[in-house]
Amino acid sequence: MNEFELLNNEISLAEKKKILKTMNEVDIAELFEHLPPADAVKFFRLLVKDKAAEVFAYLSSNAQQELVNRFTDKEINFVMTELFADDAVDFIEEMPASVVTRILKHTEPGKRAIINQLMNYPEDSIGSVMTVEFVSLKIDDTVKIALEKIRKEAIDKETIYTLYVTSPAKKLLGVVEARHLLINEETILIKDIMSTDFVKATTTDDKERLVAIFNKYPILALPITDSEDRLVGIVTHDDAMQVIKEEFSEDFELVGKLKTSDRPYLTDNPFHLARNRFVWLLVLMISATLTGSIIQSFEEAIVIVPTLVTFIPMLMDTGGNAGSQASTLVIRGIALDEIRPRDGFKIFLKEVSVSLIVGVGLALINFIRIWIQFDIKLAAVVSITVLLVVFMSKTIGAMLPLLATKLKLDPALMVAPLITTIVDAGALTAFFLIAKLILKI
Amino acid sequence: MNEFELLNNEISLAEKKKILKTMNEVDIAELFEHLPPADAVKFFRLLVKDKAAEVFAYLSSNAQQELVNRFTDKEINFVMTELFADDAVDFIEEMPASVVTRILKHTEPGKRAIINQLMNYPEDSIGSVMTVEFVSLKIDDTVKIALEKIRKEAIDKETIYTLYVTSPAKKLLGVVEARHLLINEETILIKDIMSTDFVKATTTDDKERLVAIFNKYPILALPITDSEDRLVGIVTHDDAMQVIKEEFSEDFELVGKLKTSDRPYLTDNPFHLARNRFVWLLVLMISATLTGSIIQSFEEAIVIVPTLVTFIPMLMDTGGNAGSQASTLVIRGIALDEIRPRDGFKIFLKEVSVSLIVGVGLALINFIRIWIQFDIKLAAVVSITVLLVVFMSKTIGAMLPLLATKLKLDPALMVAPLITTIVDAGALTAFFLIAKLILKI
Repeated sequence: MNEFELLNNEISLAEKKKILKTMNEVDIAELFEHLPPADAVKFFRLLVKDKAAEVFAYLSSNAQQELVNRFTDKEINFVMTELFADDAVDFIEEMPASVVTRILKHTEPGKRAIINQLMNYPEDSIGSVMTVEFVSLKIDDTVKIALEKIRKEAIDKETIYTLYVTSPAKKLLGVVEARHLLINEETILIKDIMSTDFVKATTTDDKERLVAIFNKYPILALPITDSEDRLVGIVTHDDAMQVIKEEFSEDFELVGKLKTSDRPYLTDNPFHLARNRFVWLLVLMISATLTGSIIQSFEEAIVIVPTLVTFIPMLMDTGGNAGSQASTLVIRGIALDEIRPRDGFKIFLKEVSVSLIVGVGLALINFIRIWIQFDIKLAAVVSITVLLVVFMSKTIGAMLPLLATKLKLDPALMVAPLITTIVDAGALTAFFLIAKLILKI
Repeated sequence: MNEFELLNNEISLAEKKKILKTMNEVDIAELFEHLPPADAVKFFRLLVKDKAAEVFAYLSSNAQQELVNRFTDKEINFVMTELFADDAVDFIEEMPASVVTRILKHTEPGKRAIINQLMNYPEDSIGSVMTVEFVSLKIDDTVKIALEKIRKEAIDKETIYTLYVTSPAKKLLGVVEARHLLINEETILIKDIMSTDFVKATTTDDKERLVAIFNKYPILALPITDSEDRLVGIVTHDDAMQVIKEEFSEDFELVGKLKTSDRPYLTDNPFHLARNRFVWLLVLMISATLTGSIIQSFEEAIVIVPTLVTFIPMLMDTGGNAGSQASTLVIRGIALDEIRPRDGFKIFLKEVSVSLIVGVGLALINFIRIWIQFDIKLAAVVSITVLLVVFMSKTIGAMLPLLATKLKLDPALMVAPLITTIVDAGALTAFFLIAKLILKI
């Protein structure tokens, strides 16, 4: 009995239902992505209630829309009731307006209000990714009451492993882990076992903060408070994982000089892929054309000593690579919250030392090679330039991301085009000026 | 009352103990990193038992060693008893031999055997990052028995939120979530509520698999079986997070052309940082020197049409960037398990289409600009080369990481140096040959 049998027409629906029971929600969702929508709906109807909503949440927006278009009003109501608020928001946000109208019409007013509230948070805020299904306890509850509350509410909550103790004014007072409920006597009071050393964030914080927090603290869920310090939601570890994945991908793509896309590479179409790459290539091409015109302004020198041209690739590549090394480390440090803008001077000093060590090493190697292959004057020109280029690109490469952060821009976005332009132009200008000076041309 | 008061000599130890109680383990560990070791030991002794072991686990190896050197034999025994096996292994692996001898001497034989076993797994295997403290249930246990087991064992287990049902031969039969224990009647049998659609991995799997699994499934812990399918350990979500962070950082650094380092940037010394950068810069410099000698072999053409030189930066940059765009997407896809080697042909076709769209666009822009600024023949030379370069670098950039994966090499490691060499050399050779042909030089 395996998932391939699902597509076998000779197998009864009852059998297929059994097969679906043995399959993981994530895997069922993956299967649905590859089925004709009509078949997916058929199988969706065979799923047990709990599983159906989970499978739906894991589907891509395209697959969700195909299903919803085939759903009865009752099925829409069922899905909207069962989905956690954050998943419901993710789902609705991607639907066309006409579909949204139909969905909201068949959503209970209470849920609708919550969805509207979550959709009002700015796109990059933590509020936009949090959910509201958490268990809250009172400070005078006993372990017994807490366990009963879990028994009653567990089915509708996204997590029951971390419970939140709030005051009558909804202020967050403490956090209780379910494991502590299980190992303590039933008569113990919540206030005696709750911990007050919890981490929290606010709805208006940038969702990038989740990367730093979940990277630092081994928590299962993060409580989120509003501007008046009331507990209004949580972000669970798996939703944080998604944000972390997105943020990493974004930085990764920007370092690779692409516009970020949330469509998976394999299923994305060539025109969309091309569009995300074209803008960057164009910007960088224009920048390189500027560098070209610097070379042009030194055409005279080139005609006299054509060998100078052979060093252009090496100087450009070394500058670009040295700069990207420094900026990569700083961008990653910022993403993981290991580096803050106030560390600027420390980083500057560090890159100065690193660039001197690396620069002198590379300059020496070049000096010896060019001395042997050409002559000592040319060797001096190139190696002095190498040292300068490494120094310049490393310090600029490290400082640009910090500057971007201070200006509240995405560090990875600003660095690639600027560093290429500055370093290439700077390197070649320096090279030709030093050449003119030493070679007397 | 806050953490700064800890360093105030006028505050009593009892007060300090209270302050430490309100602080999170992770934050205490961070504080210890910045304290003189003698003070850190003093505060460590003020921590309650549970918290002490957790704080110790979060410390860097340097700080751990400083503490251990000051520990009594009894304190070493305490730490080794309280640490989870995976944390104990992480700790011991970084200690010098003499310290390890002392630590193991004061470790209970049972724990020592487990540590030895975990340390025997290859460095990159899942076995090397798993831990052994999980709760296992029998298939005929009732919910009541399971809850009692949790109550008894919870304190010593890394997680009690996912429980593992095993046969007498230790085969993994099913998984039960603690939430299901809490919402079901006490008389219900475990076999009726366990799920069999669980995900698992084996001790010898590459730990990179954790990235794909935890990225795909919203699980709290992953069961790990040995070669005979017996359950031997688990990897919890927070330990998986660490692996994910490391793997992402590794790819990130390689895309940024650095040797990976597990030392944090801010505290790493310049010589170590320089060493990690020097090798890459040297390799890439040698590659660029090769490109330079290609230019040299066309020196004749340059002397006749010096303007050709001004297009070198643009062609090199466009090629490098177009290639890194393709390779970045494929490397990330491989890391997230979204792309497999068998998708090779699909990716090839995709990059061919993308490169034609992007290439024609960039070629056209160049053609018009150069026609206006210079003449139509030069415009033809450059734009034909641009199209070729984009095509070549995108297909090579996409295929190289797949080739690396097939050869069981790290895709990110192989791509940067190879792509630069191939694309730069290819681009310039093509450029000069096309120029000679069209401009008849």
